[in-house]
Amino acid sequence: MPESNVPTARTRVVREPQRAVYDRATAYQILDEGFICHVGFTVEGQPYVIPTGYGRRGDNLYLHGSAASRMLRSLERGIPVCVTVTLLDGLVLARSIFNHSMNYRSVVVLGTALLVDDPQEKLEALIALSEHILPGRWKESRQPTEKELKATSVLRLPMEEFSAKVREGGVIDDEEDYAFPTWAGVIPLQMVAGEPISDARLLPGQTVPAYAKGYSRKKTA
Amino acid sequence: MPESNVPTARTRVVREPQRAVYDRATAYQILDEGFICHVGFTVEGQPYVIPTGYGRRGDNLYLHGSAASRMLRSLERGIPVCVTVTLLDGLVLARSIFNHSMNYRSVVVLGTALLVDDPQEKLEALIALSEHILPGRWKESRQPTEKELKATSVLRLPMEEFSAKVREGGVIDDEEDYAFPTWAGVIPLQMVAGEPISDARLLPGQTVPAYAKGYSRKKTA
Repeated sequence: MPESNVPTARTRVVREPQRAVYDRATAYQILDEGFICHVGFTVEGQPYVIPTGYGRRGDNLYLHGSAASRMLRSLERGIPVCVTVTLLDGLVLARSIFNHSMNYRSVVVLGTALLVDDPQEKLEALIALSEHILPGRWKESRQPTEKELKATSVLRLPMEEFSAKVREGGVIDDEEDYAFPTWAGVIPLQMVAGEPISDARLLPGQTVPAYAKGYSRKKTA
Repeated sequence: MPESNVPTARTRVVREPQRAVYDRATAYQILDEGFICHVGFTVEGQPYVIPTGYGRRGDNLYLHGSAASRMLRSLERGIPVCVTVTLLDGLVLARSIFNHSMNYRSVVVLGTALLVDDPQEKLEALIALSEHILPGRWKESRQPTEKELKATSVLRLPMEEFSAKVREGGVIDDEEDYAFPTWAGVIPLQMVAGEPISDARLLPGQTVPAYAKGYSRKKTA
């Protein structure tokens, strides 16, 4: 895949084009920090948007779910989808109500999601998905049975047509508004993990693992 | 509007129907805690999913944006949309990888978003949107000019066809898996606000207002 993604008419950012990012590295960084996407698909003219987990492996995104779900039954046919990942970083309080904004990073991927048939790719995709959401957990869990794997569908969406949008930094007011007497600034927002809550039926000696105790989506480079 | 929302074939929750919630009060509670939605719409057969802020006023959702945006240009024509709001509450670590889950609350609204023409409704919708995201801010900001109002489009989506889905509580493992030796439990997740960062060009005497300092989406009943 090329490192830079040439925007198509469909992925070219129309509004606030200065916030558009088309390079693969930035998009992957956003995708790797997030783990919930919103999948859009159309059934009989009606769009549906469903939240779900995802994983990335190389230049592919993987989605999974029950083989019986409406979403996966629809997607299996190879219909066009849009997968959007949004990270919210803050509220931007300008002096004018019009210049209020949010700091965010988002990626929009267009394409056709296809059912993963190959058992090896399916297993590797499920591991990637699990490790994406919670690194270290897969090998400490009871492994999936044949029956469980059969009940799970996995879809592959190649990262071919996408765009990212980033708004960061402080307030931008019109010059004449800097004299307007109000507070202005940024309220930072972040998704944080609390203290893990142990299940009531833990076996003796089971303590909270490090990956659960120090859970964070921020990558320490 | 009826208090209970009878699911249609399109909003009936297919997977994990025990997690489905159709009452209006629960859906509104979720919508009122969130403030970012993902809007799905279809253009020439391709679905798009775009994150944006929203507000609620009675039984209507309001979206806004630049009159020039691709989304709003498309939606103005009155095409079918799906607006989804998702609140993430935690990661659920079961003993089996298959029973891993997430705690979340989500609302999916289907319908046709229509452009708000009436200037009074438009202004009230913008106030509702602003107060939804940041209560108390509107009246402390420099008010919108005619030109700014003209550059902003507002859309109304009536809450007529919707469903909500809630997963809460602890781990649910298959009975035979409780003997499997691993940690199990819940990692709570929450969106939290940090210390507000004041703009460098504040007028003397401007201090961080209470609504910015104590920002939280949790409603204290």
